[in-house]
Amino acid sequence: MKSPHLIIIGGGFAGIEMLKQLNGLPIKVTLLDKNNYHTFQPLLYQIASGGLGPDAIAYPLRKIVGRIPNIAFRMAEVKSIDTNQNIVTTDIGDFTYDYLCIATGSVTNFFGNKNLQEFAMELKSIPQALDLRSKILQEFEKAVSQTESGQIEQTLNFVVVGGGPTGVETAGAIAEIKNNVLPSDYSEINKNFMKIHLIEASDRILAAMSEISSEKATEFLKNLGVEVHLKTQVKDFTGTELLLGDGSIIKTETVIWAAGVKGEFPQGIESNSIGRGNRILVDEISKIKGLNNVFALGDVAMMTHEEKYPNGHPMVAPVAVQQANLLVKNLQAIINGKETKAFSYFDKGSMATVGRHRAVFESFGIKMQGIIAWLGWMFLHLMLLVGFRNRLVVFVNWLWNYVSYQRAIRIITRPYKGKN
Amino acid sequence: MKSPHLIIIGGGFAGIEMLKQLNGLPIKVTLLDKNNYHTFQPLLYQIASGGLGPDAIAYPLRKIVGRIPNIAFRMAEVKSIDTNQNIVTTDIGDFTYDYLCIATGSVTNFFGNKNLQEFAMELKSIPQALDLRSKILQEFEKAVSQTESGQIEQTLNFVVVGGGPTGVETAGAIAEIKNNVLPSDYSEINKNFMKIHLIEASDRILAAMSEISSEKATEFLKNLGVEVHLKTQVKDFTGTELLLGDGSIIKTETVIWAAGVKGEFPQGIESNSIGRGNRILVDEISKIKGLNNVFALGDVAMMTHEEKYPNGHPMVAPVAVQQANLLVKNLQAIINGKETKAFSYFDKGSMATVGRHRAVFESFGIKMQGIIAWLGWMFLHLMLLVGFRNRLVVFVNWLWNYVSYQRAIRIITRPYKGKN
Repeated sequence: MKSPHLIIIGGGFAGIEMLKQLNGLPIKVTLLDKNNYHTFQPLLYQIASGGLGPDAIAYPLRKIVGRIPNIAFRMAEVKSIDTNQNIVTTDIGDFTYDYLCIATGSVTNFFGNKNLQEFAMELKSIPQALDLRSKILQEFEKAVSQTESGQIEQTLNFVVVGGGPTGVETAGAIAEIKNNVLPSDYSEINKNFMKIHLIEASDRILAAMSEISSEKATEFLKNLGVEVHLKTQVKDFTGTELLLGDGSIIKTETVIWAAGVKGEFPQGIESNSIGRGNRILVDEISKIKGLNNVFALGDVAMMTHEEKYPNGHPMVAPVAVQQANLLVKNLQAIINGKETKAFSYFDKGSMATVGRHRAVFESFGIKMQGIIAWLGWMFLHLMLLVGFRNRLVVFVNWLWNYVSYQRAIRIITRPYKGKN
Repeated sequence: MKSPHLIIIGGGFAGIEMLKQLNGLPIKVTLLDKNNYHTFQPLLYQIASGGLGPDAIAYPLRKIVGRIPNIAFRMAEVKSIDTNQNIVTTDIGDFTYDYLCIATGSVTNFFGNKNLQEFAMELKSIPQALDLRSKILQEFEKAVSQTESGQIEQTLNFVVVGGGPTGVETAGAIAEIKNNVLPSDYSEINKNFMKIHLIEASDRILAAMSEISSEKATEFLKNLGVEVHLKTQVKDFTGTELLLGDGSIIKTETVIWAAGVKGEFPQGIESNSIGRGNRILVDEISKIKGLNNVFALGDVAMMTHEEKYPNGHPMVAPVAVQQANLLVKNLQAIINGKETKAFSYFDKGSMATVGRHRAVFESFGIKMQGIIAWLGWMFLHLMLLVGFRNRLVVFVNWLWNYVSYQRAIRIITRPYKGKN
């Protein structure tokens, strides 16, 4: 019997977990991704803040695929999917499949605001993180030559929108730049001109965690000098002025939008299979409703059979990894005519770091804050990184940053000149 | 007495050596550079070949300047110099000086060939090195999907033009990618389709070194599979075909031009002060002929008073560093009305590495080849890097590359889509 051909679109957490589980199985696999590397997204903000280089958190996909005989990789941008003819169309040609897994993840959600889309910075990919690093440093360089205090304040106001883990970690990292890098590198700048704002629409940050974690994280941010604005909506952004819901304005040139993500996938999925947040509706084994051989998993998928998650699972790496793991087992069951097993999310907890010695951590009812949570956060992120080499490089950089209080990689590799 | 104001244009080897010597002197200094970092150019080829990340060899200029009270830094692109009015015009405004040092280095010299300028890759800056890394990896990805052998050969022909240290080191590094990365990452590609050519116009590579070094380096390159073409001129390049002096053609999409550099400096220097290779003619204390308070040093300067160097000194880092060191002493002498001292180049030798265990090394009559030369090369480059953190990161990466035989950073951070 000829091995069936499985195409996986996307080398994120779901994609690479599938590869690991598919190693050696009688299934021919092709992984498609527009990049030739896997991105460890949880640490993108550390690239933006100069603590890590891209090579520390990017992992070449061919390093995973290369030695597995039943798996091939093609760097390709998928244009569309034809689920009737089982064809994936890409910029390097067409591919036919027996089974298809869509693991294309998510992109920033600006909720239709064109100005924010044009002017706000994003933090979902390595080029975006490098752009943000350049932008922050360029603002500092600009401020050095400015003489009017109003101008300097506009240049040195940094606004992070969204109080989830990404927003909290980014705001904390920028505050540490203010406290540790600005005084030594930019002695000509009055440090007090620099302000970091964190804006959150709901009544607390880290809303997915407990109230004690929210409170503690808010306290940590305030200790670092971040101004936390709760119950605050963002209406618009002109590139120099951020308009808030109450009509007030923050003059700023740097807005980092961490207030939402949405599913991202190629054309060819019927609109009645698409749910809230542009996520593809799937059943309890990740199969897209109405299709027999096409699956979706991770951020891009919305699976609603679990009572606890009526609007789909949280868009985080552990969901993607667990769904990928089960999907490979279920695919084997389907191929062999055996029974499949419904997905059930095993939530191991969550955490966020604000800065040096400052983190919040929740797992199985245990709640920790401060230095122990911070050490736990670092240990777990080191373990979750793909490959020993990246762990080593991140560890060496963290050690250096810890000892020196610096963000060593404060280099503008390519100046940021706006999106496109 | 008011401290005189010295402007230094360029934070290369000459510029940062001057800063170190100027620390604490009664001279007000402004360093101008279009980048906010110093580039350790000798290791750019290792970024291109995926062995190091940019942060390993780039050093933030503010980390040097930040803590020195008499030195300021401005990230600025210098547009022109007015030597009559003592004004430097930049993209962020004008600066007036009492003394000016031009240490702007060199750029690739295509000797007027527009096609080469448009299509050939360069290796003089970090963005160029990243572009070359992307280009090499993109060619591999392209080859995987190609079916006609003629096409594959064109995609997998890599040509390095210029048999100086940069050319030799780059050709060797690409050969190691062929030997160590291609078989594991691209098992679908027949490794024999990949060819590396090194083209040199004269009758030996590393012409600045002894004949035994040239011979040994040629042998090393051949061992690694590089085809060395001596006495071969490059006439033109269409982007897919490289035309050689004898009329023959190499089909290739990747030509790395390491065949020459020329001085690069802002407008405002009189044409009769400009010599061969677009270098500024200076006297024995680096002063530009015909000017009283403007100096040029390093690659951009041509100093001809030493009998051994009638066409100027070699365009290498040690010359720049020694000239910078002496110039600070001479500036103090000029300011204090004392006698200046003529420059005399102290040549400590030269070296080039071809690959693992393969290098050539010459110093004070001692000539070494092979593993000892290779260890010496590594040790000296580690010592020459600026800052302990960069030494540590390079060391960790080299250790990893040595043990794993891999080039870990084989990621296409930003795809190369042609120049501009």
